[in-house]
Amino acid sequence: MAAKNFLDELKYDENGLIAVILQDATTNEVLTLAYMNREALERTLATGKTWFWRRSKQRLMMKGEQSGRVQLVRDLYVDCDKDAVLIKIEQVGGAACHTGHRSCFFYHLTDNQSLEVTEEPLFDPGQVYGSACGDGG
Amino acid sequence: MAAKNFLDELKYDENGLIAVILQDATTNEVLTLAYMNREALERTLATGKTWFWRRSKQRLMMKGEQSGRVQLVRDLYVDCDKDAVLIKIEQVGGAACHTGHRSCFFYHLTDNQSLEVTEEPLFDPGQVYGSACGDGG
Repeated sequence: MAAKNFLDELKYDENGLIAVILQDATTNEVLTLAYMNREALERTLATGKTWFWRRSKQRLMMKGEQSGRVQLVRDLYVDCDKDAVLIKIEQVGGAACHTGHRSCFFYHLTDNQSLEVTEEPLFDPGQVYGSACGDGG
Repeated sequence: MAAKNFLDELKYDENGLIAVILQDATTNEVLTLAYMNREALERTLATGKTWFWRRSKQRLMMKGEQSGRVQLVRDLYVDCDKDAVLIKIEQVGGAACHTGHRSCFFYHLTDNQSLEVTEEPLFDPGQVYGSACGDGG
């Protein structure tokens, strides 16, 4: 009998997706909240690099396949309900966000209840993706 | 004219919810992935403690209202797409998870592809909530 695969224990939503938090393995900075399906998780584990289901392209894409900014998997955790995953990664090229920012969470709530951008982007997404609204590949 | 409220800029899902990552403000450990609606976010900001929509109880509950393990809000961030929130908190009582663990992400994927519990719980949830499957209030 084959060993039970932990991917069968996870709870995917009605679209077959599960929320995945990407965290910098060195600094513990939270970089991105993204979604994977089972196949994306399988490829992520098989290749040691993160893969996501891209709704806009309707296919699996390896993060960084366009930009070279791949994410190297260091550790994977699952939460108590098994409906969320946390992956600690090493971000090649420094920036995880398709906007060029290191983290996607670059809007900080100020004391006067408005959002301010906390840091400058590390690269110009227009130069990498051809538009500022790329998928972050 | 009233100033624009950043809560109007956020993208809630079809159930009016938005994903919220809770992170320890001191250690940067990721504690929980949870969901808030707009009212929960408003109360969280007004009180400086986290509130969540509890599906099982169909009402807003302050985290810790039952256990005393409240979460004190330190900083709030929004991601590039404005469909996810990151809140840095100080966890009173040490454990954010209803299981008694410090973090909800206590299952670690081992080299042989199975999930192992990484640490012992800090308290017995049966003593706090009356059952091991409480809502973590």
